[in-house]
Amino acid sequence: MIVILKEHPDRVQLDNLMNWLNTQDVMVQPTVGEHQMILGLIGDTASIDDELISALDIVEAVKRVSEPYKKANRKFHPDDTIVRIDDHTSIGGGALTLIAGPCSVESEDQIIGIAEAVKKSGATILRGGAFKPRTSPYSFQGMGLEGIRLLLAAKEATGLPICTEIMDASQLPIFEDIDILQVGARNMQNFSLLKELGKTQKPVLLKRGMSATYQDWLMSAEYILAGGNPNVILCERGIRTFETYTRNTLDLSCIPALRALTHLPIVIDPSHASGRSALVPDLSKAATAAGADGLLIEVHNDPAHARCDGPQSLTPEVFDRLAKKLFAIRDVCGDDRRDVIIK
Amino acid sequence: MIVILKEHPDRVQLDNLMNWLNTQDVMVQPTVGEHQMILGLIGDTASIDDELISALDIVEAVKRVSEPYKKANRKFHPDDTIVRIDDHTSIGGGALTLIAGPCSVESEDQIIGIAEAVKKSGATILRGGAFKPRTSPYSFQGMGLEGIRLLLAAKEATGLPICTEIMDASQLPIFEDIDILQVGARNMQNFSLLKELGKTQKPVLLKRGMSATYQDWLMSAEYILAGGNPNVILCERGIRTFETYTRNTLDLSCIPALRALTHLPIVIDPSHASGRSALVPDLSKAATAAGADGLLIEVHNDPAHARCDGPQSLTPEVFDRLAKKLFAIRDVCGDDRRDVIIK
Amino acid sequence: MIVILKEHPDRVQLDNLMNWLNTQDVMVQPTVGEHQMILGLIGDTASIDDELISALDIVEAVKRVSEPYKKANRKFHPDDTIVRIDDHTSIGGGALTLIAGPCSVESEDQIIGIAEAVKKSGATILRGGAFKPRTSPYSFQGMGLEGIRLLLAAKEATGLPICTEIMDASQLPIFEDIDILQVGARNMQNFSLLKELGKTQKPVLLKRGMSATYQDWLMSAEYILAGGNPNVILCERGIRTFETYTRNTLDLSCIPALRALTHLPIVIDPSHASGRSALVPDLSKAATAAGADGLLIEVHNDPAHARCDGPQSLTPEVFDRLAKKLFAIRDVCGDDRRDVIIK
Amino acid sequence: MIVILKEHPDRVQLDNLMNWLNTQDVMVQPTVGEHQMILGLIGDTASIDDELISALDIVEAVKRVSEPYKKANRKFHPDDTIVRIDDHTSIGGGALTLIAGPCSVESEDQIIGIAEAVKKSGATILRGGAFKPRTSPYSFQGMGLEGIRLLLAAKEATGLPICTEIMDASQLPIFEDIDILQVGARNMQNFSLLKELGKTQKPVLLKRGMSATYQDWLMSAEYILAGGNPNVILCERGIRTFETYTRNTLDLSCIPALRALTHLPIVIDPSHASGRSALVPDLSKAATAAGADGLLIEVHNDPAHARCDGPQSLTPEVFDRLAKKLFAIRDVCGDDRRDVIIK
Repeated sequence: MIVILKEHPDRVQLDNLMNWLNTQDVMVQPTVGEHQMILGLIGDTASIDDELISALDIVEAVKRVSEPYKKANRKFHPDDTIVRIDDHTSIGGGALTLIAGPCSVESEDQIIGIAEAVKKSGATILRGGAFKPRTSPYSFQGMGLEGIRLLLAAKEATGLPICTEIMDASQLPIFEDIDILQVGARNMQNFSLLKELGKTQKPVLLKRGMSATYQDWLMSAEYILAGGNPNVILCERGIRTFETYTRNTLDLSCIPALRALTHLPIVIDPSHASGRSALVPDLSKAATAAGADGLLIEVHNDPAHARCDGPQSLTPEVFDRLAKKLFAIRDVCGDDRRDVIIK
Repeated sequence: MIVILKEHPDRVQLDNLMNWLNTQDVMVQPTVGEHQMILGLIGDTASIDDELISALDIVEAVKRVSEPYKKANRKFHPDDTIVRIDDHTSIGGGALTLIAGPCSVESEDQIIGIAEAVKKSGATILRGGAFKPRTSPYSFQGMGLEGIRLLLAAKEATGLPICTEIMDASQLPIFEDIDILQVGARNMQNFSLLKELGKTQKPVLLKRGMSATYQDWLMSAEYILAGGNPNVILCERGIRTFETYTRNTLDLSCIPALRALTHLPIVIDPSHASGRSALVPDLSKAATAAGADGLLIEVHNDPAHARCDGPQSLTPEVFDRLAKKLFAIRDVCGDDRRDVIIK
Repeated sequence: MIVILKEHPDRVQLDNLMNWLNTQDVMVQPTVGEHQMILGLIGDTASIDDELISALDIVEAVKRVSEPYKKANRKFHPDDTIVRIDDHTSIGGGALTLIAGPCSVESEDQIIGIAEAVKKSGATILRGGAFKPRTSPYSFQGMGLEGIRLLLAAKEATGLPICTEIMDASQLPIFEDIDILQVGARNMQNFSLLKELGKTQKPVLLKRGMSATYQDWLMSAEYILAGGNPNVILCERGIRTFETYTRNTLDLSCIPALRALTHLPIVIDPSHASGRSALVPDLSKAATAAGADGLLIEVHNDPAHARCDGPQSLTPEVFDRLAKKLFAIRDVCGDDRRDVIIK
Repeated sequence: MIVILKEHPDRVQLDNLMNWLNTQDVMVQPTVGEHQMILGLIGDTASIDDELISALDIVEAVKRVSEPYKKANRKFHPDDTIVRIDDHTSIGGGALTLIAGPCSVESEDQIIGIAEAVKKSGATILRGGAFKPRTSPYSFQGMGLEGIRLLLAAKEATGLPICTEIMDASQLPIFEDIDILQVGARNMQNFSLLKELGKTQKPVLLKRGMSATYQDWLMSAEYILAGGNPNVILCERGIRTFETYTRNTLDLSCIPALRALTHLPIVIDPSHASGRSALVPDLSKAATAAGADGLLIEVHNDPAHARCDGPQSLTPEVFDRLAKKLFAIRDVCGDDRRDVIIK
């Protein structure tokens, strides 16, 4: 961390700052320039509050040199984290995991039908919404508990582990048999929820907030990791930009960028990002070519009548053709993976 | 709501859509153009899911004519909502309410000292953080329960009602004697929390999400209102933009804009928005001149040592001078208020 | 175009509006709802100024149904535009064209050396900056005229056509032998320049503005097309977002989106977008898998000493390996192209 | 400038860097930490290309300590710049200058009529568009040369100096008698234009780019100043955000922020920013209370029929009432100005 002092700092205040820094377990190395003095703080600065230092009259600016996240940082954990979902399934380490299913669970027939179809196409995890965060209180909010029951019936029928969204820590008992707890973009900084998830050992699929930077996102992952739960999967679902043709803008740069910054697996959700099923195949191919650890794709047997997020779903037939193409792309690109981790 | 059909829509699908719309309590009026057909939906369309209709093969686009929020909408509630806080204090209706206090509660002396000072300067509500949402799990998270106790001690000592942040619905019992429950920007779309707050009658100060539009924000207010709690106060605290000199960019256009769109009171938080105490006086004057119903200003008796958000706090002396100026500006501008509600 | 009137519109003003609309060569079809009246304008509305209509007291909102661009619109020009560069080279129609070269031209040896290298790897167009738009007046602004001379020497030596940036219409005579005129992101809405380019028949590579929507961008293309020059190539180079790890955020959704909206070819510039050469290979693969018509890649024989934009360049060796991979991905994905044009 | 090296930097490359830095007229002071080495560059670093250094293999990041603009920087020019427009008129130094007039010049009657009206209300400069940058090639592009002639007729009739937009350096001869050359937001980084304006002594009103940071903006001002023209006026006209209710979001924090960063005068354009005339009075009052040096307000004698940007114009009657209020606010706030310059 670097502290840039204003010109001609007050002597007493400077001494106070120096003394306080000495109590913070960091070494201070000053650089004296013509106009300005700079303090280099050396050591573990993650717990030092840069805004507190900025507050001082004598300080012009504070800049972090190292990332404020530790457990999520590849620097300190060079090997890829592979999150084990069940005896047969895991996410991370370079394999391409397909997570597929409808936006919302609607009926037992629907969810089991889709589960069987996507399994046949190569998906190894079933997704489906039971509790749905909706912008409007008047929109369909999901089947709730009954939706969870139907997802577990589909797991029973097909053997596929289940990924579904949790909205509040008080729901944890209901999610006991769910395999992956999804935290939605709007809850990425619901720190109460993150802290509770950190106390479990459940795999958590942490969606990126709509306007979050990589650092914001990794700090939210850090909340879960710091609590003792190492099973965090990052999921890019598009960020808000000025473009309105797509619902959000999918940021595929995050794949190589996060591979350099963190050891956690990275899953891409092209369905939610684009909000248009016509764009999903190309974006899925792009994400696969860029080296994503997994894809979260909405598949519906009747997109026109999906209760929510319908426009972004694919039919099982389109998904089947797409999956074949994705595995072919991964065959072409698969060996590149190790190259791109920035040492 | 307007549904724009693609050229040459399939006849059967069009009939299906027409039939479904007829079950939705809206009147459908078609307009047939050279190339395209447009359906006008007339009636209460708030509960119609526009994304569901967009999903249909025959639909090119769906555009809303009327706002999807009803209880928050000035169209249906022309009179200003005045939220009563206690027997002496309210927010809304054109008065300028000053809510002041430290970012974090630190000690009994600190909070009572500041409460007395800001009361003398004209503030009628005390703010102070007990539970703090922090980006990093390693930063100070507030005094918690003890902080609540100290706030109540300051209320006892000064008579000022208290505004402080709630982070999770499970905390509601702890907040029983708190007068205004603040919902932070990061929780603006924590719908579980909003639903629970809708079941109470507590005044809720709902901060705008970092990247929320007015409509997103009003839809979150609608969650609380729809639950049965009419006591919602909107609080602008800056939005994320590309500018990095300020922490966030304060959007003062929201004052006249929201006055046209909604009947709810609008409070401005220049301290958190700018993240720089040097900017707070000018922004406070600007917000007052533009007609804000209240200001939320951080005041600290020792800004350099504030545990969090220090750089944005003012000393009681600066606050006192500022408050005088604000009341003088309101005297000059006060009579304009009625003009600017767009009929 | 749809005009939504306020409740109870003034009769005289409504008649005035109706009369004016009748002079604008559009048919007006009114829809009368419970609370509001809506006017549907049918016909060619591209030249109707929606802001002018919004200005009227009796109008609540105006919404466009059809895109305001005509010549760039795939609806009216269903076939792909293939821009012919020279007898051997073209861009568009599904082939993958590699445009490669250094950020800045520095010497004859440098530019000819790189040109020969990238040609061997499969690039068919040489890029290189002679006039450089730089944020700071104190940064290197390119070799200028001498840079153009060196680019033409490289063309002479290798036969590769040249793509380089023009900054002002007054430079047109200097660019006479240049094959593709690049318009930079900062000049995307330099309408004086666009109009002059519309008077030529030169291929123009139009970069997307840093915060432009697809529609803004296509409207800028429309300026050139409307002037009579059909040879426009769109180039995505990243948009400004809140992320700071990458210089800009590459928006690969634009590939399938623009393929639906326009017939113009789409080239992706992963080098400038990311600002980090380590990300370029993965982003290039992603763009290829998503169906880009071409890639604009910075290649330098000594990235560490490149005078500008160095961090984003690849060495010829890395480019050679990458190009092989890109052609292999295109072989796997190539046949998908026709599927994804949304009918 | 601070250069953060990667762990275990290559010895030869480090020596090369050190040697190169020694040729750049800066002193290098290294700080050696446990894991990383940091180089502090001391001296005039404005001409050092931070991206070039970032390109080096051994460098992790480069951070600027001081601003890259010099002539625009208040640090080196502590006194306010007051731009003299004519013998009676100037902008800057704490006075409130009102610049008013129509979006587009339409006729001699119109422009003289408005000029007389706004002069009576206290405006001292007339604005009006002759050349209009329009997103669509099919929209009205202004009266051009004839518009300039009419503006000069209004100057002749009223004595008011004229502010109007220049779109290209080739237009300079036409603007010889114009008093203030306005550079539009879309041309803020048209460096060819900025360089030519730097060669004149004309007052330039430089609008902020739609997504520009303060630093981007000040760097564009620096282009003009570095060319030898000290007469630059900054004009905030709103930035692009996710909000769609307003055309852009007016950033009033720029008033106190720029007052600290630069000595150049700051003018606010609430008309263009909001795109809604109903919001202009409140935003004008806010800008005045925050200490703006001037306001650029659109006034039209028949807003409903303005050819462009109509919805944002005020009538002369509304402007007259508003101007009185603005001068009253300035009386209340005027003495604060000196306080808020951050020493």
